[in-house]
Amino acid sequence: MTPDEKLAALGLILPPAPKPAGNYVPFKRVGDTIYISGRGPRSPDGKPLTGKVGRDVSAIDAYAHARLAGLGLLSVARNAAGDLAKIEVVKVLGFVNAVPDFTDHPKVINGCSDLFVEILGDNGKHARSAVGMGSLPHDMTVEIEAVMRIL
Amino acid sequence: MTPDEKLAALGLILPPAPKPAGNYVPFKRVGDTIYISGRGPRSPDGKPLTGKVGRDVSAIDAYAHARLAGLGLLSVARNAAGDLAKIEVVKVLGFVNAVPDFTDHPKVINGCSDLFVEILGDNGKHARSAVGMGSLPHDMTVEIEAVMRIL
Amino acid sequence: MTPDEKLAALGLILPPAPKPAGNYVPFKRVGDTIYISGRGPRSPDGKPLTGKVGRDVSAIDAYAHARLAGLGLLSVARNAAGDLAKIEVVKVLGFVNAVPDFTDHPKVINGCSDLFVEILGDNGKHARSAVGMGSLPHDMTVEIEAVMRIL
Repeated sequence: MTPDEKLAALGLILPPAPKPAGNYVPFKRVGDTIYISGRGPRSPDGKPLTGKVGRDVSAIDAYAHARLAGLGLLSVARNAAGDLAKIEVVKVLGFVNAVPDFTDHPKVINGCSDLFVEILGDNGKHARSAVGMGSLPHDMTVEIEAVMRIL
Repeated sequence: MTPDEKLAALGLILPPAPKPAGNYVPFKRVGDTIYISGRGPRSPDGKPLTGKVGRDVSAIDAYAHARLAGLGLLSVARNAAGDLAKIEVVKVLGFVNAVPDFTDHPKVINGCSDLFVEILGDNGKHARSAVGMGSLPHDMTVEIEAVMRIL
Repeated sequence: MTPDEKLAALGLILPPAPKPAGNYVPFKRVGDTIYISGRGPRSPDGKPLTGKVGRDVSAIDAYAHARLAGLGLLSVARNAAGDLAKIEVVKVLGFVNAVPDFTDHPKVINGCSDLFVEILGDNGKHARSAVGMGSLPHDMTVEIEAVMRIL
């Protein structure tokens, strides 16, 4: 199956291109490398999903939010490459909006990492850091940025 | 106008090269890509501008601080490339030293992004993430790092 | 002396390859560039070193933890390149799990930066940011990620 067929089989729809909240762009390409701007989770009607993970939102719910953020990153990647079959994920930096005693950041950002591997197979495997923030834009639960490569 | 002429027209002066607080360098070049070390805002006499955004410092003041941090990044970029006309901004990662309920990180980091586009035009457009930190060195209000390219 | 001889002279042993806590890999190579996943400090028996820097753990102890995280990064780099003599450090991003009023992040992350320069000489010099997190996985004191280049 192609990545698009896998998305369809999972009932997943890539969200529309984001509208940056400032003087920047959704991605920047240098040679074959694309740097994708940080992306948060949004509901189908475009509202940001918010709250402190470990207090307002569970790690399990935040896993689903990281998956939504990952869909947003894939959407930008498809715009950049024309076809997800030509995308390799290189690096993911996952920011979790967590309370100070939260410790399960990897379980949250796995929502994005698992999606990338489900949809892209071996091309979805990436280096990664998952860290806990004091706060995030719009009080979003997670924000994830990525470096990808066009094959 | 060249970037240097635009800086002059805006009355902006690039600060001197930073003195790293450790065993690292202001930038590292790999091929045409330059990775620039995180930079905070400093007053004209070199003192770091400090405080928690959303409590001690307003988002509007922090916008001005992000602009100062951006001037520091441009200063390093000019040292690296010899001429700002040969610089393209690729990626900006903006760290805001904010209280936990702060939500306007994009408005703060816009201070840096707007500067890059004012001075460099289309070459100043970049991918970006803006996030909220629990703390920053010297209690600085913002710290910003960047990846740029020498054209 | 070679990097391996320097490690031996300092009585340092590179830890075994990490087991990623999710669907990601310890490093990803793109051309000659390697992106290394975030690494925390672990005791010789593999347990993560934990606590909030500035409250549970001093900056001096956290310096030692950053050094341990740096050994983990070098271990991955040696796996990637076959020989540390072929490694150049490009960029370090150091995350410190600190209390909100902590300000000495550079002194902490120096533990990693100093190690890289001790072992790799000029090839160890890098661009860097050091920032304070609200929380980190497993409540680890530091987490450090790096971009390196294979010479």
